[in-house]
Amino acid sequence: MNITLTSGETISSSSGTSILQSLKEAGIFLTSSCGGKGTCGKCRVIIQSGEVDSQSKIKLSQEEISQGYALACTSYPAGDIQIDIPKESILTVEGKVDTGKSKDLLALLQSTGATIHPLTERYVLQLPPATLDDNISDLERLKRELMTHGLGCLRVPFRFLANLAGTVREKNWQITLSTIHTEDCYEIINIFAGDQKASQYGIAVDIGTTTVVMYLVDLSSGELVDVASTYNSQIRFGDDVITRIVHATEHNELHNINRAVISDVNELLKLILSYHDLDNDSIDCFVVAGNTTMTQLFFELDPAAIREEPYIPTANTFPLAYAGELRIKAHPNTPVYAFPCVASYVGGDIVAGILAARIHKKEEISIFIDIGTNGEIVIGNSEWLMSAACSAGPCFEGSGIKHGMRATNGAIEDVKIDPETKDVAIEVIGAKAKPTGICGSGMIDAVAGMFLAGILDQKGKLQEGSSDRVRKGEDGLEFVIYSGEKRDIVLTEPDIENLVRAKAAIYAGFTTLLNEVGFTFDDVQKVCIAGGFGKFLDIEKAITIGMLPEMPMEKFEYMGNTSVIGTYLCLLSRSMREEAEDISRKMTYLELSVSNSFMDEYMSGLFIPHTNMDAFPGVKALMKKT
Amino acid sequence: MNITLTSGETISSSSGTSILQSLKEAGIFLTSSCGGKGTCGKCRVIIQSGEVDSQSKIKLSQEEISQGYALACTSYPAGDIQIDIPKESILTVEGKVDTGKSKDLLALLQSTGATIHPLTERYVLQLPPATLDDNISDLERLKRELMTHGLGCLRVPFRFLANLAGTVREKNWQITLSTIHTEDCYEIINIFAGDQKASQYGIAVDIGTTTVVMYLVDLSSGELVDVASTYNSQIRFGDDVITRIVHATEHNELHNINRAVISDVNELLKLILSYHDLDNDSIDCFVVAGNTTMTQLFFELDPAAIREEPYIPTANTFPLAYAGELRIKAHPNTPVYAFPCVASYVGGDIVAGILAARIHKKEEISIFIDIGTNGEIVIGNSEWLMSAACSAGPCFEGSGIKHGMRATNGAIEDVKIDPETKDVAIEVIGAKAKPTGICGSGMIDAVAGMFLAGILDQKGKLQEGSSDRVRKGEDGLEFVIYSGEKRDIVLTEPDIENLVRAKAAIYAGFTTLLNEVGFTFDDVQKVCIAGGFGKFLDIEKAITIGMLPEMPMEKFEYMGNTSVIGTYLCLLSRSMREEAEDISRKMTYLELSVSNSFMDEYMSGLFIPHTNMDAFPGVKALMKKT
Repeated sequence: MNITLTSGETISSSSGTSILQSLKEAGIFLTSSCGGKGTCGKCRVIIQSGEVDSQSKIKLSQEEISQGYALACTSYPAGDIQIDIPKESILTVEGKVDTGKSKDLLALLQSTGATIHPLTERYVLQLPPATLDDNISDLERLKRELMTHGLGCLRVPFRFLANLAGTVREKNWQITLSTIHTEDCYEIINIFAGDQKASQYGIAVDIGTTTVVMYLVDLSSGELVDVASTYNSQIRFGDDVITRIVHATEHNELHNINRAVISDVNELLKLILSYHDLDNDSIDCFVVAGNTTMTQLFFELDPAAIREEPYIPTANTFPLAYAGELRIKAHPNTPVYAFPCVASYVGGDIVAGILAARIHKKEEISIFIDIGTNGEIVIGNSEWLMSAACSAGPCFEGSGIKHGMRATNGAIEDVKIDPETKDVAIEVIGAKAKPTGICGSGMIDAVAGMFLAGILDQKGKLQEGSSDRVRKGEDGLEFVIYSGEKRDIVLTEPDIENLVRAKAAIYAGFTTLLNEVGFTFDDVQKVCIAGGFGKFLDIEKAITIGMLPEMPMEKFEYMGNTSVIGTYLCLLSRSMREEAEDISRKMTYLELSVSNSFMDEYMSGLFIPHTNMDAFPGVKALMKKT
Repeated sequence: MNITLTSGETISSSSGTSILQSLKEAGIFLTSSCGGKGTCGKCRVIIQSGEVDSQSKIKLSQEEISQGYALACTSYPAGDIQIDIPKESILTVEGKVDTGKSKDLLALLQSTGATIHPLTERYVLQLPPATLDDNISDLERLKRELMTHGLGCLRVPFRFLANLAGTVREKNWQITLSTIHTEDCYEIINIFAGDQKASQYGIAVDIGTTTVVMYLVDLSSGELVDVASTYNSQIRFGDDVITRIVHATEHNELHNINRAVISDVNELLKLILSYHDLDNDSIDCFVVAGNTTMTQLFFELDPAAIREEPYIPTANTFPLAYAGELRIKAHPNTPVYAFPCVASYVGGDIVAGILAARIHKKEEISIFIDIGTNGEIVIGNSEWLMSAACSAGPCFEGSGIKHGMRATNGAIEDVKIDPETKDVAIEVIGAKAKPTGICGSGMIDAVAGMFLAGILDQKGKLQEGSSDRVRKGEDGLEFVIYSGEKRDIVLTEPDIENLVRAKAAIYAGFTTLLNEVGFTFDDVQKVCIAGGFGKFLDIEKAITIGMLPEMPMEKFEYMGNTSVIGTYLCLLSRSMREEAEDISRKMTYLELSVSNSFMDEYMSGLFIPHTNMDAFPGVKALMKKT
């Protein structure tokens, strides 16, 4: 029997094997927090054709069932079938990380001057055995020994004592302590019998509005061992932070929204640990970063006031939490450090991004922009940092775009359109894969290419007859980027409108913020670009559509997901944590939503590249050429 | 319909009313952690005659059912019935505390020089409302305000943040914070909207091996509001600490043993709060004291090593715990402070006892003895304190004595036997009640009386024919103390053997400890006696049986349950907490179980009053007189 996917890929399946299992054997992982028991309702697939025996329909609505939704874990093909896997069902894990990427991250850490000195530290202790003459309690014995290691001030959470007696005796009074240093005091986070210094790992997580990315890091060597990612399951409560806040407050779903992202973290953790044959006890620490709303929701804090003037979160700095109290399925004592936030719309992901981009250490003025579900901009140097958020929307991460997707396997990440012939050449992530959608960098390429080829006008309207690929679709005109056997991949006019609004908001953010501090683009020496585009963002094309300012190429640097890079740095180094806290304290915030000049700038940006063509002389020249 | 109790008391019951409810209406409270749903299996009664419709038999063994055990909550009489209530099913609450007792406690606190300054403190704050110009997060706003109250160093447990946003806004930015000061830092334990300074109470608990006693204390005034007590449900895992350790370790029942005492605390708490119409949020703090094993079991710490040489507990000092992590049904953030212990067999109850008896503040040498399930002795003064434990056994608390019971309603607490006529006069706790058993003070009276009346010889053997009340029972000879309509109350020969062994162990403890420090009884200026006897322990009679040394009467003081008095002091005053920690550090411990001289002294004490009659000249004179 065969299972055919929407992408055209075909997987073989044997009788009595669930769809979930068959996909897994083919290297496609679906979210499944119940472990395939048919109870969590997460491994949804859509049966497009063929007969399937579905034994559980839990958490599927009547409407969904009628649309063909089924749970992959308890659905068994009765013959050849064709299925569609909704993006929110997919988990990805790289399995083996490119050693170059790991080396680059280590080099970044070293370039900061920091050494590997993780938030948590393990100590191997040989305690003197208890005797009638030396009969102090196990805890007092431990504290006495720690004094000799300079760990005089030691906080012992109550829950840590439960197994102490057994553990100290198990390997003849040799133990390994895992500790974290907080508020000038050490706190015990775990205890092991014998010498367990070798196996210490940490988890760095970027909690994006759209995606959750996890790094598994060896805390001894600093090596990036693996990367796993998934869509943020909160997507079912809305694509953007505002919709989720509404759900949390007006629909009373804060708890469910919190559970959604925690279960994503648990899924990724389970997958990444089992891949590397590690157990929970080998994880000593979590560092997470997210925007302010994501961080509140991660901690299940009421986000209502974020949405209403004067836009106040419960907290911007977070006390250390423990995996257990957050219901993260690691050892319950494992500390979870969250990056501090700056304001309601500039969060820990941006602080982590600045930490990674290092603009807070340079004399020259830099711009940092993170284009995720929102667009956050920071301008500054080692003296000052000013930030703002422009509601760019999540289209560059694939949301709200008909065939949009994240920059993962199967995404079209590069589009070239010949201005003369209008021929289209594409590149797809994952060598042999057929494309299943288009990611942020592919969209920018496509819009720039269409614009320069005259397929799109300055207002972002598709020109009927300008190319064979322009056709009428169900949402109006659309441009066919890839013509597949089963399904074409297109950009529709509403998609393009979304993209134009997003790029206008970003550019308006730059100019408003520069005006506020009295500088111009000429004063800016560097533009660091972060975000979930493909491996490579074509800067020239981003300038062509007017998303980025026209500046010399060498001033731009595309850095990828700087939020997770920042969490990596912080996981490995205490001085990085201090720097992160300094950044959050130092950064000021400009509220663009109440700024008239931002609205004016935004309106001017709704053209390609911009109403003010003088700011884009190079694009102007290209336009003339075509 | 009537329900007749073993005591002869009769309660009326109406059709369709459960036995539990009928008892409750008559002021008899049974433990029932499920609230009468028939699921916890705690409100056991024994149906001795009559028809009962029992709808749940959960947690009752086949054997118990055949013995007549039923759950009172779901059992409905079908006519007149007679029942027996096992002592472990009974909860007691005084309801209204004698104001004299409350005044005495306050006077004791004042006599120490301490003022009312509880471990926890409430602050009412008026925060400046958030505005666009003052848009820091709620947490930062709170911290900023606290700076002005001198609470600069503030630890905010993560779990505290959940409702912060809603709470600060509920009463127009006025809030009340409940805080505890630990390790030179304040920690937030609860937050309320508006001004909630008035309603702050604390709970002091003595976790005895046999009984659990709870005080409800008004933290503003220091008033003792109520006292509640119950048998420690761990009794079903054995009467003494050793049996319970065996159950915890060899039968793998640590968790169940822990749950047993926690559910007792929860039962008492529920009862005492509902009596006074208080909610969980009005409880700001718990202080508990127990012997070392009880404290380990309260925290669910493996007690195995306590039982084996060199006798080591997991901990003698305990980090602050929270009600939530202990599953105590108060607000989960409520701190639980446990008195520090000294060694495996001298625990926090003794430290609390010394704190209450104040011998650590006097120049003169005092003896402190706590006769509970064990017998712990402390000798010392303001310079030094030395302690030991003698395995006296739980007989003075009613365990292992055929008709033994705690000093509660229905207990014979005073027995007078006329040496000539052998007539017996008794006094019973609770004015009009018929006696249901005999408590520790009654037993000592009875043994002394029998001895001086020639009913008992020096070896503790009952003399057949010495009185009409000496008769053959199922356990050999027995002495009838009270002849009831339904049931007689007797002391059997095995009961008396138990009492003689217990008093011998206590006296041997005194002499061994005095020898160790090179003093004699003549050097001792005061003997403080603590324990769960009746209201009044007859010192002369305790000397007569050789439990206490023969010394001038004015040197003795009977203090009652000093453990719960110590927890009361500590709940109200930080300086008392510091004193308690000083006491535990200062106290040294002598291990009697490996002492040959203790065994010798013990053997000499197995006579009444003692082998060495020269130490008891007064008793000798009395013996001659009779």
